[in-house]
Amino acid sequence: MKKVAILMGSKSDAPVVAPAVKTLKAFGVEATVRVLSAHRTPGEAMAFAAGAADAGYGVMICCAGKAAHLAGVCAAHTTLPVIGLPIKSSFMDGLDSLLSTVQMPAGIPVATVGVNAAENAALLAVQILALADEGLTLKLKERKAKMTADILRDDKAIDEIMAGLI
Amino acid sequence: MKKVAILMGSKSDAPVVAPAVKTLKAFGVEATVRVLSAHRTPGEAMAFAAGAADAGYGVMICCAGKAAHLAGVCAAHTTLPVIGLPIKSSFMDGLDSLLSTVQMPAGIPVATVGVNAAENAALLAVQILALADEGLTLKLKERKAKMTADILRDDKAIDEIMAGLI
Amino acid sequence: MKKVAILMGSKSDAPVVAPAVKTLKAFGVEATVRVLSAHRTPGEAMAFAAGAADAGYGVMICCAGKAAHLAGVCAAHTTLPVIGLPIKSSFMDGLDSLLSTVQMPAGIPVATVGVNAAENAALLAVQILALADEGLTLKLKERKAKMTADILRDDKAIDEIMAGLI
Amino acid sequence: MKKVAILMGSKSDAPVVAPAVKTLKAFGVEATVRVLSAHRTPGEAMAFAAGAADAGYGVMICCAGKAAHLAGVCAAHTTLPVIGLPIKSSFMDGLDSLLSTVQMPAGIPVATVGVNAAENAALLAVQILALADEGLTLKLKERKAKMTADILRDDKAIDEIMAGLI
Amino acid sequence: MKKVAILMGSKSDAPVVAPAVKTLKAFGVEATVRVLSAHRTPGEAMAFAAGAADAGYGVMICCAGKAAHLAGVCAAHTTLPVIGLPIKSSFMDGLDSLLSTVQMPAGIPVATVGVNAAENAALLAVQILALADEGLTLKLKERKAKMTADILRDDKAIDEIMAGLI
Amino acid sequence: MKKVAILMGSKSDAPVVAPAVKTLKAFGVEATVRVLSAHRTPGEAMAFAAGAADAGYGVMICCAGKAAHLAGVCAAHTTLPVIGLPIKSSFMDGLDSLLSTVQMPAGIPVATVGVNAAENAALLAVQILALADEGLTLKLKERKAKMTADILRDDKAIDEIMAGLI
Amino acid sequence: MKKVAILMGSKSDAPVVAPAVKTLKAFGVEATVRVLSAHRTPGEAMAFAAGAADAGYGVMICCAGKAAHLAGVCAAHTTLPVIGLPIKSSFMDGLDSLLSTVQMPAGIPVATVGVNAAENAALLAVQILALADEGLTLKLKERKAKMTADILRDDKAIDEIMAGLI
Amino acid sequence: MKKVAILMGSKSDAPVVAPAVKTLKAFGVEATVRVLSAHRTPGEAMAFAAGAADAGYGVMICCAGKAAHLAGVCAAHTTLPVIGLPIKSSFMDGLDSLLSTVQMPAGIPVATVGVNAAENAALLAVQILALADEGLTLKLKERKAKMTADILRDDKAIDEIMAGLI
Repeated sequence: MKKVAILMGSKSDAPVVAPAVKTLKAFGVEATVRVLSAHRTPGEAMAFAAGAADAGYGVMICCAGKAAHLAGVCAAHTTLPVIGLPIKSSFMDGLDSLLSTVQMPAGIPVATVGVNAAENAALLAVQILALADEGLTLKLKERKAKMTADILRDDKAIDEIMAGLI
Repeated sequence: MKKVAILMGSKSDAPVVAPAVKTLKAFGVEATVRVLSAHRTPGEAMAFAAGAADAGYGVMICCAGKAAHLAGVCAAHTTLPVIGLPIKSSFMDGLDSLLSTVQMPAGIPVATVGVNAAENAALLAVQILALADEGLTLKLKERKAKMTADILRDDKAIDEIMAGLI
Repeated sequence: MKKVAILMGSKSDAPVVAPAVKTLKAFGVEATVRVLSAHRTPGEAMAFAAGAADAGYGVMICCAGKAAHLAGVCAAHTTLPVIGLPIKSSFMDGLDSLLSTVQMPAGIPVATVGVNAAENAALLAVQILALADEGLTLKLKERKAKMTADILRDDKAIDEIMAGLI
Repeated sequence: MKKVAILMGSKSDAPVVAPAVKTLKAFGVEATVRVLSAHRTPGEAMAFAAGAADAGYGVMICCAGKAAHLAGVCAAHTTLPVIGLPIKSSFMDGLDSLLSTVQMPAGIPVATVGVNAAENAALLAVQILALADEGLTLKLKERKAKMTADILRDDKAIDEIMAGLI
Repeated sequence: MKKVAILMGSKSDAPVVAPAVKTLKAFGVEATVRVLSAHRTPGEAMAFAAGAADAGYGVMICCAGKAAHLAGVCAAHTTLPVIGLPIKSSFMDGLDSLLSTVQMPAGIPVATVGVNAAENAALLAVQILALADEGLTLKLKERKAKMTADILRDDKAIDEIMAGLI
Repeated sequence: MKKVAILMGSKSDAPVVAPAVKTLKAFGVEATVRVLSAHRTPGEAMAFAAGAADAGYGVMICCAGKAAHLAGVCAAHTTLPVIGLPIKSSFMDGLDSLLSTVQMPAGIPVATVGVNAAENAALLAVQILALADEGLTLKLKERKAKMTADILRDDKAIDEIMAGLI
Repeated sequence: MKKVAILMGSKSDAPVVAPAVKTLKAFGVEATVRVLSAHRTPGEAMAFAAGAADAGYGVMICCAGKAAHLAGVCAAHTTLPVIGLPIKSSFMDGLDSLLSTVQMPAGIPVATVGVNAAENAALLAVQILALADEGLTLKLKERKAKMTADILRDDKAIDEIMAGLI
Repeated sequence: MKKVAILMGSKSDAPVVAPAVKTLKAFGVEATVRVLSAHRTPGEAMAFAAGAADAGYGVMICCAGKAAHLAGVCAAHTTLPVIGLPIKSSFMDGLDSLLSTVQMPAGIPVATVGVNAAENAALLAVQILALADEGLTLKLKERKAKMTADILRDDKAIDEIMAGLI
């Protein structure tokens, strides 16, 4: 099974990124976490992206805030699917990160998930890898079923919860 | 090789979606185009999504405008990767479509590309399928090389172009 | 008298939704609260919407955040009036929820109230039911009169309040 | 059957409002169209709103642009459900109209539909009236079925449409 | 000298409005503070506006949040200059209040100041009254001079302040 | 009677500003139109503002687009009321102009009207001057009455207008 | 005198960029125009940036639209001042380009000018080069004086212009 | 070596501005900090800007919030490069400051950095001065190298950091 690379532009993004790592672990997907910046270590970031396919990675998740260029820069150097995770920093709840990540020019797509949606970034990576791994597909279905069950359980409990609120 | 499904919410989206179809064709990827609406034919849309994996699809591209729910609704019914293509309609250049597509709740990711970025949606689908198809990877590299060559050619011609403008 | 269904996408929405339940109770309108998600329990959500009219409901209030599809998905499966209550989550004070709820395509309206405006969602439901119930109309008028009286009382007290502030 | 009142703030809104009138007519719902402005004929607007219930109206649709106060002002003077239709004028595609219409204070709800979504405003009015009129419910179901059929027909034709585009 | 009326839509706005009252007091301008709502006490609000000129008021300051209609409604009922003070509530830092206040239709201007800018609302009122009162003009000039002096004093102290920060 | 000064940052703003001149003329208010830029002729702009009161002006209307500083710069140099008219240029329908005009710091108010709302800027100026001129108040009331009459006439004609549209 | 490099991400930006070239030419500043893309020719773009200082450039102007990474990527590879010129493409008048250009992380500044403000980008480059070239400073002062003269001339003509408009 | 002037509109901006002072100090660049307001001490601000070049300054950094006119006003009075630092105040995370600073009219550029990006403002000033000072260029390269080293060190430590988070 191919590995997933998780790149973040700054170690301060680690708490936001953590759910992605946790999710991949839950699926038994091997993940490598790196701190690589499009602006501060551009050489290392690009070298990593350029060599990612050969190094056994199947998907890259790139996390960055503000003028978030990391996903785009990596996408420019690989043909692997690159997932962009816009990080909320201090301006307009991450609108800058979102637009900098998703509005890529024709030819270089970035698969963008919601602002700070680290779990979804990981799930998307798993969905992609699952195309070649029936075991992962099964686990995705189980997780989906559990998610449904959780909501149904919450649904059962809601009258009591609501009674405590009104 | 797995197929790609392209779903649009309305046939009026067809001109925006066309570059996606053209791009997939250029890669020799089999694509099925459907008009299926999250709101007007929800049953059909969901049935399609639920059965897509078994029908041989590897990726779904969902195109919709305004309160764009199609990608999210499909993602709820499959574990295949779902690419969301927000369509610009008449309000704020598609900001409504973009946010309705990308800001999915935890557990149900949608791989969102830029507003009206149909070519990128298709390229992302190809990148995903290429993980299991070296031929596609080769074609992606060729396309990337051609893209580079095009820019370099434009770069050579720019002095002349600019001379005509100033 | 017809009942009101209040659906929320996640039990974490309960504190925001509570004023709606309280308001309906104050009017003596029977309300059912459910946790049903457009993405995590789509089948249950749609089944509920599809059967709501026959089950004696007159109005549905759907509460969701981010890419808020719940109201739209329910509106697709019923001809009952569906009230959309956009929930503020962590992005742009709920602009994503608001646009995902209100910008519905032609043919499937959602009666949208303000972000987190749970009391107004309930009052709108009562106004709709009151068309067939003069008792409710009377209570609405009483509530409006009380609201006016409250402001007039505040108006009387404002000089004292202001004196404490300047 | 109760009537529907359609109020617009300026006769220049008439082309945007026309689909609402047409839709109500298609349902056989009696509609009265008025030009009444919250700012230029406030007395007439409020008098109309205050007397609407007694005059046999069941729903009011209020259409206005910019700092769109018409729906709010009417809602202040009636307990009937008031549908707000934000009109796009020359600023930010009607974001001003949308926020001025939907962000009502607690106690005075306005059932807001999308920007320029006149057909949806009318359908919402019909859905409300249909609670007391099985004939209208039947027509709503028929219209929904036709809408579905239209999409399915478009779906059948899409390959040919797409062939003409690529 | 004419008086200034300060109307707020809710007593909860009082802390934001307080600097306006304080500023008017500092100028010796008589101010009346009222809690009057465009939606909850529309009759009283309009009656006040309609009678304001005859009651000796020269300017009205109207403070409201969300779909802020108070200034517009008052402006519809008087030919006095109406100053709109948009109050920040819980959505987009008052963008809704700002647009609802400033984007008035042709014919009914509202003199809008910044979000929560209560002092500026009062100063604008004083500037208007000062056209007929040389004493006020003198005080405005003194305040402006003091403001300048304050900045110049801060300018002198900035090296010390900065030394404490770096 | 005091005069009104209309300053625009560029002669290209003239068509947008024209309704202000026309409106003042209709009221018999003497108006001086100047092209003075906060950035390109700052000295002249400030000198004009500083001397405006002594030159017999009662109100200044400042029209500018983009980073619209003209109103603020003038307000810094006079105690006359300054009306800011944000001009729509090519970015976000004038959101930049609006925010640059209205969000003034404490101490220096600008009475802002809507984007491109030249007529309202003029009417606000007239309302201010009317405080010391009963004739102007009378004309304002007549104009308001005419505006009401126009709407009532449109209201009478709306059925015919609508018939032509549906 | 050092040269100025103007990089654009696509030759389609040429018409927007042309005023920058023209302005530099008017100052006698040598300019090199290149088509180099952060995503399509990242190697060439970075090599150019890395070698720009040694090649005799003093300032780089980088023009790009959408998720505009070109300025940031170049700034990462040089210590020369990099001017970012956000290009308006089809989304929100270039808000995406503006935020992608200006919101750079700490350590890598980009000197951003307004959306499509090519002339200003060039003038800023000249201002920077003028620090070491008194001749350029003189020309900047002359241009400023001419600009002032132009406005003063427009000011003289405005009454006639306005007469033609009202 | 030329000096850098740092102007802030209010002493309350000092904590945001401090990193700029600290950064310049780290480079051995002489900096003068002033509190000068475009609106409250316009004369002093303009006099400073007009005399800055002769007083030995090479760059001006202007920091202001809300309707941030300081940078624009200074740029109108000098041919030195003016760096605009938009300060986040209480509205939309400084969107007002950003647009007021960056959207300058043709002819008067302001080199704008990100909201609250004081360090970047200083670095940009250093980059500009470094064009005439090889020592500064060397220090910029060292700082860049250190920044890279910091990221690489963080990269080495990330597995441990992440382990503590999941």
